Amino acid sequence: MTQTAATTAAEPAAPERRTADKLVIFTWGGDLDKIWPTLILATTAAAMGMEVLVFFTFWGLFPLVRNDVRLTGDNWMQRAMSLLHRGGTEHLKLSQMNFAGAGPAMMRKLAKDHNVASPQQLLELAREMGVRLVPCQMTMDLLGLSRDDMIDGLDEPAGAATALAEAQDAITLFI
Amino acid sequence: MTQTAATTAAEPAAPERRTADKLVIFTWGGDLDKIWPTLILATTAAAMGMEVLVFFTFWGLFPLVRNDVRLTGDNWMQRAMSLLHRGGTEHLKLSQMNFAGAGPAMMRKLAKDHNVASPQQLLELAREMGVRLVPCQMTMDLLGLSRDDMIDGLDEPAGAATALAEAQDAITLFI
Amino acid sequence: MTQTAATTAAEPAAPERRTADKLVIFTWGGDLDKIWPTLILATTAAAMGMEVLVFFTFWGLFPLVRNDVRLTGDNWMQRAMSLLHRGGTEHLKLSQMNFAGAGPAMMRKLAKDHNVASPQQLLELAREMGVRLVPCQMTMDLLGLSRDDMIDGLDEPAGAATALAEAQDAITLFI
Repeated sequence: MTQTAATTAAEPAAPERRTADKLVIFTWGGDLDKIWPTLILATTAAAMGMEVLVFFTFWGLFPLVRNDVRLTGDNWMQRAMSLLHRGGTEHLKLSQMNFAGAGPAMMRKLAKDHNVASPQQLLELAREMGVRLVPCQMTMDLLGLSRDDMIDGLDEPAGAATALAEAQDAITLFI
Repeated sequence: MTQTAATTAAEPAAPERRTADKLVIFTWGGDLDKIWPTLILATTAAAMGMEVLVFFTFWGLFPLVRNDVRLTGDNWMQRAMSLLHRGGTEHLKLSQMNFAGAGPAMMRKLAKDHNVASPQQLLELAREMGVRLVPCQMTMDLLGLSRDDMIDGLDEPAGAATALAEAQDAITLFI
Repeated sequence: MTQTAATTAAEPAAPERRTADKLVIFTWGGDLDKIWPTLILATTAAAMGMEVLVFFTFWGLFPLVRNDVRLTGDNWMQRAMSLLHRGGTEHLKLSQMNFAGAGPAMMRKLAKDHNVASPQQLLELAREMGVRLVPCQMTMDLLGLSRDDMIDGLDEPAGAATALAEAQDAITLFI
């Protein structure tokens, strides 16, 4: 199927069907159960030979924060936000059945037992495969996040216009 | 409008506009208020003559579990998950204003009064209309779900690559 | 970038790449953190010269309710729903970290400090830019919402078939 998709993409002859060779994900959710599908779809698409861009906005930005960083922000509100919502792939919650962290721990254990890669592994894999990871500049400003607070290997922060321009000829998902 | 859309899809002459004759939904949410739009959009698109595929992943898998099944899983974690999150269309919650089940009951009553079909009815309708319902293999493995735990009429379980390949020439939504 | 996108859309010559000049958003979430991306993407796309349609369904309908309206509904269930989930752009919650309203207040303050427009301002901007705002008829019926309960400048209420027909040649997002 991967091969078929790639082959079709290379042949612009077929007129009545469009074959997208690109995937653009707008990642809004930062919970474990949102980051997982984001990264599984992104790396799978990259493995299929598709061009992939992930635009991280709102809560989606938190998993891109370094695991060893505690956000300080410019004011008490940003500090309060960060105290309550620690960033980094090691501190992800579940949007449902979180149970003060028991849910995510259980889910991570199940994933490990079934050889499903962790968000951290998938993030690294995505970067190696050339998936472009673009943080939303506006959200970074709002939350007081600087480039230094975030993991390496990200693209330059950008805005909604860039994401929409990239989405023009792509499969688009808002996760 | 249905006719117009179908007619246009059959004529590949018009060069500057693409007309998708296919809808691919990535159904991630399993709550009543997520399953409803999934199935209303899927059946509406099918009625419009579109090809429709729904890929059920993560929480989206639960409504496909038989109403009479209590998941047992392979280990205590999967059993705990299933105790706290019973599957089947009769046990759906609302993602907001659930109020221990009062919210969904209210919503179902309102729907009935306004002749909006129930998720169960919509699922059956979707199958009759040829909507392809594809459960995510990886999620089934994670949650310890077997094919026997799930309703009839589903397609073979598949992975993200299959869903992305199907999405190539389709309208795509992540719900 | 805006210019490039618009120029490409006007030239149907390039055969292997489709350029969407249209954005269709299915807005399901009515929380502040869902309405913000909806309206930022909608107005940004409009500024890029794209045709934009937003279909408001389920919880997404609440921000379109007038700020001075308390929904009365036709029966006690609809009244209960509305008591617990007041409509209007001034009464939006956060889907996460709401803290009885402290979260949204904080977020609004941060936005103001960083010159990010409020949902109310973005709604007005969207209408001025010609973004079509379409409320879902079925949800209005379910919740007992009449056209008079809602803000001015909306398109006629419509159903899923209309939204799907509009989505045929567009970038699509379910938010």
